[in-house]
Amino acid sequence: MAFSPLIDQLVEALRCLPGVGPKSAQRMAFHLLERDREGGLKLAEQLDTAMHGVARCSSCRTLTEQPRCSICDNFKRDRTTICVVETPADVFAFEQSGIYRGLYFVLMGHLSPIDGIGPAEIGVSDLLQRLQEEEIQEVILATNPTVEGEATAYYITEQVKSMGAKVSRIAHGVPLGGELEYVDSGTLAHALNGRRLVD
Amino acid sequence: MAFSPLIDQLVEALRCLPGVGPKSAQRMAFHLLERDREGGLKLAEQLDTAMHGVARCSSCRTLTEQPRCSICDNFKRDRTTICVVETPADVFAFEQSGIYRGLYFVLMGHLSPIDGIGPAEIGVSDLLQRLQEEEIQEVILATNPTVEGEATAYYITEQVKSMGAKVSRIAHGVPLGGELEYVDSGTLAHALNGRRLVD
Ligand SMILES: [Zn+2]
Ligand SMILES: [Zn+2]
Repeated sequence: MAFSPLIDQLVEALRCLPGVGPKSAQRMAFHLLERDREGGLKLAEQLDTAMHGVARCSSCRTLTEQPRCSICDNFKRDRTTICVVETPADVFAFEQSGIYRGLYFVLMGHLSPIDGIGPAEIGVSDLLQRLQEEEIQEVILATNPTVEGEATAYYITEQVKSMGAKVSRIAHGVPLGGELEYVDSGTLAHALNGRRLVD
Repeated sequence: MAFSPLIDQLVEALRCLPGVGPKSAQRMAFHLLERDREGGLKLAEQLDTAMHGVARCSSCRTLTEQPRCSICDNFKRDRTTICVVETPADVFAFEQSGIYRGLYFVLMGHLSPIDGIGPAEIGVSDLLQRLQEEEIQEVILATNPTVEGEATAYYITEQVKSMGAKVSRIAHGVPLGGELEYVDSGTLAHALNGRRLVD
């Protein structure tokens, strides 16, 4: 609308958020302007602070405002195990589950030659260097069960094995409590191929 | 997560946006941090500018950064007709349809005694004052076809009629229970053209 450039610009800026189209951006802008200016100002401040303040952990490469994240700096964690994930959101997911007490390594993506993303871009040499310098005994590969995630896991497996460390891959299959008929066929194929003898 | 207060605070702040739960707030935060810091900074800036810069038009009460909005200031518009809507988003909807050339009055809500919102809160006396001072011949009521919207239209009808002005209500081409801002412009055009005099 020509009658408020400031609102137009806010609507446009909100569209940088994933999943936010023109209609919901407009709804968000009006909501903040009509009912929650304090929330809007707080969001502006937190965005500014986070965009400037959050960098990458020098050890595991996850997003953090510290030089080294508090997981890497926590000496109560099991330092013999390192879990390799694609994104910081995966670290969050593991931490939320509360079932893992080891360390992490965040690839910040996966191998994708077509996009120019090779081993250097996902930091494989940093991972191998940690294996040399630290007391790591097992590398758990938790990349996504997609074509790219599997290829990435395969590549890292070869590299890590050549250094003599143990490598494992998390299990993929039908989620607990999930119903077979609602599971996609890729997952089902995984579950079938990964079957184990019951004894 | 305890390991990045800045990310936690950003996720929390994003939840001021309507329809954004914890999961999508987290997804938004990571998206900006991993892939679009420039977009995040731009959004911070636009939020700050809009929250501080956007106020209300002194004449129609819609949101604008000017003392009087560019619709009220446009002397090519039909100044004999005033369309009463609940929100600035409704003005956007009408303007997007391009079918209305008159002026507006934005109630910024509807009568809702239970929430303490009476005629004073929705600016009825400002509307009546405009009827006295301006050359308005018809008041088109375009409040939502909800219980509150109808009650508001009824109340305003009584007030406006007592001043001798013509009152019309847009036709119920707008789906019952629907909100104006989500209605397509064709439906809106139909509703406007099908308006009837309230007698
Ligand atoms: Zn770390
Ligand atoms: Zn105005």
